Amino acid sequence: MATPVKVAKTDSWDECFNAAVEVAREAGEEIRSAFSSEKRIETKSCAVDLVTETDQKVEEMIISTLRGKFPTHSFIGEESAAAGEKVELTDNPTWIIDPVDGTTNFVHGFPFVAVSIALSVNKEVVVGVVYNAILDQMFTGQLGKGAFMNGKPIHVSGQEDLSQSLLISEFGSSRDKEKMDLVFSNLGSFLNEKNSAHGCRFLGSAALDMCQIATGGGDLYYQYGIHVWDIAAGALIIREAGGVVWDTTGGPFDMMSRRVLCASSEKLARTIAEGLTQMELPRD
Amino acid sequence: MATPVKVAKTDSWDECFNAAVEVAREAGEEIRSAFSSEKRIETKSCAVDLVTETDQKVEEMIISTLRGKFPTHSFIGEESAAAGEKVELTDNPTWIIDPVDGTTNFVHGFPFVAVSIALSVNKEVVVGVVYNAILDQMFTGQLGKGAFMNGKPIHVSGQEDLSQSLLISEFGSSRDKEKMDLVFSNLGSFLNEKNSAHGCRFLGSAALDMCQIATGGGDLYYQYGIHVWDIAAGALIIREAGGVVWDTTGGPFDMMSRRVLCASSEKLARTIAEGLTQMELPRD
Repeated sequence: MATPVKVAKTDSWDECFNAAVEVAREAGEEIRSAFSSEKRIETKSCAVDLVTETDQKVEEMIISTLRGKFPTHSFIGEESAAAGEKVELTDNPTWIIDPVDGTTNFVHGFPFVAVSIALSVNKEVVVGVVYNAILDQMFTGQLGKGAFMNGKPIHVSGQEDLSQSLLISEFGSSRDKEKMDLVFSNLGSFLNEKNSAHGCRFLGSAALDMCQIATGGGDLYYQYGIHVWDIAAGALIIREAGGVVWDTTGGPFDMMSRRVLCASSEKLARTIAEGLTQMELPRD
Repeated sequence: MATPVKVAKTDSWDECFNAAVEVAREAGEEIRSAFSSEKRIETKSCAVDLVTETDQKVEEMIISTLRGKFPTHSFIGEESAAAGEKVELTDNPTWIIDPVDGTTNFVHGFPFVAVSIALSVNKEVVVGVVYNAILDQMFTGQLGKGAFMNGKPIHVSGQEDLSQSLLISEFGSSRDKEKMDLVFSNLGSFLNEKNSAHGCRFLGSAALDMCQIATGGGDLYYQYGIHVWDIAAGALIIREAGGVVWDTTGGPFDMMSRRVLCASSEKLARTIAEGLTQMELPRD
């Protein structure tokens, strides 16, 4: 067992960062080559929660590559969790991996499919990499070192006013009537005659939704029901791009809580937190 | 005034097709160079119906280029219509132009912004070009000659089963309570415990939504409130990709009716037409 490491903004996780970028690119190649072919699909929690052999194969490749380089580190992976492995975030350096974020998009050939890889140390994310394998967009962040897309710095828009904002969200994969009604009523809170964002976009990948906020190509994002592997990398990238990542209640972000609120400014985040009807979810 | 031309599938509109692709690329360059800069925004029908100087400048460029080559042709353009020009579709060869489809995306830097150019002859579209200027994706179709993205043939998925489908739609720019309630209730018809698509995506550009269906990267799309310039090119591209384009009621498509239903198969289109609560709109 490795000794827990104290994280400071000056600590260098460059070797881990470089390894994450490299393995994300390799994973992206695998995803790209499978993107246009027929997929064998299975379902997980419900009929619309899909998984393919690519998800499983890519996760195994990422974990075995990173474990080879960093044998004392811990791992949390979406497919390992689905296979029954316990999801436990400790202070030990822990890689948090979603091999194919946007599996439904992947199955359908909708070009928002990402590899998401984060490294958490003392429960704080120090490295975040989200790679849109289809559009070849590599989003990266390192704690205290800024956020980038394909090597160029990115920044949130800084927008403070809901009426000038572009909202990004998702329906999620629950089709439970009570949850769907809440999804619609929350959307209606920010899209109505009195109080309206410019519009709303759904891309079907939490990691890429978050990266859109980080580039300024969207001003606010919230979602319930997501998992730590969907959001760990994106949250660091948004913060390093100057944005706000909170719990949907307006409290501090807890990456195991299955809910997230991101915005281009604190003022906008406050407006959204106050307008949302909250949804209770079991923790990761 | 030119003599109306009888269209047959063997007629060649190659010169017009080539001109449309060329001017769409030029327009795309203009859009790309303005994409990352600050925009001066005005509103049209309501606070969320936006227009920029790029929309107007690009439309003028497209129309003057095409008018120079085809002086007897007629023109319908989104910004000309907004400036009070009558929208009239006759049998004369008529160019139908949306210089910036996805203006809200353009304003926000969300990378789904397209030039849409169609040529209608005897009220039938014979050439359709939709160019995503940011992602450099050129979607094209010619009557009877197939559909392409960046020169490669594209095809719809052929999916027939709603429960295996990916739905694409939009909220539109109306914030009228009655219309918003109808938008939510229609979405709820296809995303619920008993009857559910895999998911729903909103990209904010009708032309690009339709091109997603044409590539198979989505199986069904419907929208109310769109205009002829949003859908004329996309409708031809979907049909040439093997898809179905109907009125939302299940009747024949009327490009001036401000509503459209597109699907990867007749069976799926029928399922959607039967599940939709219709919305009445003034014609273009």
